[in-house]
Amino acid sequence: MSSVSAAETTENATVARVQAMGRAARAAARLMARADTGTKNRALKAIAAELDARRGELAAANARDMQQGRDNGLDAALLDRLELNDARIDGMIEGLNQIAELADPVGEISDLKYRPSGIQLGKMRVPLGVVGIIYESRPNVTIDAASLCLKSGNATILRGGSEALHSNGAIAACIAAGLKQAGLPETAVQVVDTTDRAAVGALITMPEYVDVIVPRGGKGLIERISREARVPVIKHLDGICHVYLDDRADPQKAFDIALNAKTHRYGVCNAMETLLVAQAVAADFLPKLAAAYGEKGVELRGCEKTCAILPQALAASEEDWATEYLAPVLSIRVVANMDAAMDHIARYSSGHTEAIVTEDYTRARRFLAEVDSSSVMVNASTRFADGFEYGLGAEIGISTDKIHARGPVGLEGLTSQKWIVFGDGQIRE
Amino acid sequence: MSSVSAAETTENATVARVQAMGRAARAAARLMARADTGTKNRALKAIAAELDARRGELAAANARDMQQGRDNGLDAALLDRLELNDARIDGMIEGLNQIAELADPVGEISDLKYRPSGIQLGKMRVPLGVVGIIYESRPNVTIDAASLCLKSGNATILRGGSEALHSNGAIAACIAAGLKQAGLPETAVQVVDTTDRAAVGALITMPEYVDVIVPRGGKGLIERISREARVPVIKHLDGICHVYLDDRADPQKAFDIALNAKTHRYGVCNAMETLLVAQAVAADFLPKLAAAYGEKGVELRGCEKTCAILPQALAASEEDWATEYLAPVLSIRVVANMDAAMDHIARYSSGHTEAIVTEDYTRARRFLAEVDSSSVMVNASTRFADGFEYGLGAEIGISTDKIHARGPVGLEGLTSQKWIVFGDGQIRE
Repeated sequence: MSSVSAAETTENATVARVQAMGRAARAAARLMARADTGTKNRALKAIAAELDARRGELAAANARDMQQGRDNGLDAALLDRLELNDARIDGMIEGLNQIAELADPVGEISDLKYRPSGIQLGKMRVPLGVVGIIYESRPNVTIDAASLCLKSGNATILRGGSEALHSNGAIAACIAAGLKQAGLPETAVQVVDTTDRAAVGALITMPEYVDVIVPRGGKGLIERISREARVPVIKHLDGICHVYLDDRADPQKAFDIALNAKTHRYGVCNAMETLLVAQAVAADFLPKLAAAYGEKGVELRGCEKTCAILPQALAASEEDWATEYLAPVLSIRVVANMDAAMDHIARYSSGHTEAIVTEDYTRARRFLAEVDSSSVMVNASTRFADGFEYGLGAEIGISTDKIHARGPVGLEGLTSQKWIVFGDGQIRE
Repeated sequence: MSSVSAAETTENATVARVQAMGRAARAAARLMARADTGTKNRALKAIAAELDARRGELAAANARDMQQGRDNGLDAALLDRLELNDARIDGMIEGLNQIAELADPVGEISDLKYRPSGIQLGKMRVPLGVVGIIYESRPNVTIDAASLCLKSGNATILRGGSEALHSNGAIAACIAAGLKQAGLPETAVQVVDTTDRAAVGALITMPEYVDVIVPRGGKGLIERISREARVPVIKHLDGICHVYLDDRADPQKAFDIALNAKTHRYGVCNAMETLLVAQAVAADFLPKLAAAYGEKGVELRGCEKTCAILPQALAASEEDWATEYLAPVLSIRVVANMDAAMDHIARYSSGHTEAIVTEDYTRARRFLAEVDSSSVMVNASTRFADGFEYGLGAEIGISTDKIHARGPVGLEGLTSQKWIVFGDGQIRE
């Protein structure tokens, strides 16, 4: 009985703390929204300088997390993500400087035009307000997310993985010092400093203080947050990406793109998971591709027609078409034509990225127009679907939603547009 | 016991029916997304022709709703909204023709540029998919909403008020006939034909079939839908709009705008509810304005300083500042300066529309940049915040959210943008 009460007391304290952070963030957001570009850039550069100056502190904090991780039996991949070595600190510093170089989206006015009433109407880009970011182990996300939100004039509440608590705390100290040096409120970027899971529940259910939540992490985390959040969520679920090799594809482009989209990196959301091949060219294209995949150690799972061409392929099950492998595994389906390929995509795609390889003008236009994914490509590798490749600077995530932000989300995805009216005394008649 | 089972059976049947509509809408959405502009315009004009040809049927259906409404004791205002007379049918026909004239947002490509990798990157505007619209008594919303969704390439499920069931059914028949004539799927616009409230619950909780919900109606309806929806909601809650009369305002503009913003129409969301006046000009401006409000029968509720200047004003309570009167009532507050006005707005505004009246360049710029509402105006009446005045054609609603669509929502708010990539065989190195 008394332990239940203790747990409840802790939970109430956590909720109260997160709400206090929310109130502070809401107040800071007003100041951030009117901070000028120079001030925000000075803050970004001051944070970079702090990271550089405090490498010792960062290493010590990270060593505590790493030791704790080893003690708790974290696997090698998680420990690798958790590590904050000099190269990663250099990467964070470079990221901050890159974001300082990006154009400031806030205050951008577009589409100014006179209406028949005489008012001049336009749109002004403005920050969203307070952005809550929930992520897992990698501590460098703390800097990525904070810097994008800062540059776009938002206040941020960051909730990192409990295994990175000390590293994130040390990074938060650098951020606070940098904000202060630039004359911005330290509460513009707040890092939740408790591992109590009630913090997440509180953060996603206070629309009065938080305007949008961006979850980054495994599917379980994102599904839970989407289900329980009472504020909008910019989210990314699966990346089941397709490449369709048309019968009018250039064979060399088809080979290069199909190989690159699968094997450039396996564990990324923009890697191809299913290859669709037009029947007329399947016997031509597949053996050479399969040999190249074989050299890279990619396991192939195919439809009946694929297996008839490729004896090394296993039979694909219905589940394969709906699976994001994130691994050296590829499902392959031979389809009658582009319409059949688009039907397959409409059914199984997660709406992330799809590509066609073709030299046919009309098919390229149709594929671009009709495929309903956040990125649709002609004759390019799906691996290009990425904030850096798209020139956004760092990305806060890749949205597979259609509302608000779609695809890689950079500074612009962290803003909204309001209408502005310049008048000379106009009234409605 | 048996009556509970009967109710449950009805509810299950309703849910199954709405889900079947969702499946049909999802299938229709793919066809709608690729319908060309000419086809969509032909459908809009065919629906207009059907409305014109079936005036008798519409009148008969509406007469049934009106009689039922009178029998159920609906008040005069509700009965007025429910009525579908010849002038209102003319209005719907005109609306359809206007939307046919608007530019098609779908397929618009913007920001095409080459990236260092050689890919050419841009954005293409695309429909959201399936839009669910939930509204109350006015049957003309059925046409407004259906036509905006149709032109923007979306499929729609409409759930009107139960008191307009027969009228909406007759309108739905015109829409289906028009879609068919243009060769578009009749399931592109579906009207829920049951008054069972379980239909709303089902419609807002099937993300697999519905991409966004737009509720239109009273605050209670909208709050309930926001709370219970499992899909994004484009919503409008309050319209607590402010006009700030600066001490550098042109007196004539100040008078005209303050009078127009309150008295042009009372029951609308873009009417001014609170007037803020700079202390230095309050004694000058307020008596003349109060006299004009008095002539129109507007009740005034003021802060202490206002009441000292205007003996006819009642004392405003804290609650007044947070109230959307939608009536000939106005709260007035004397403030020290523009900063105090902006503080008041930040605290009490619903984020709909605010205006400043000033001749001061720097203050105008600051007010525009710093006030966080969906429309911010200089020297113009808040009454201009409206889809028609902004040139959007009909509006599906006015959003007071910051995510996705803000302010009046027309065709563009019913679309999203996807990234498109034109390549020549590029792969990631």
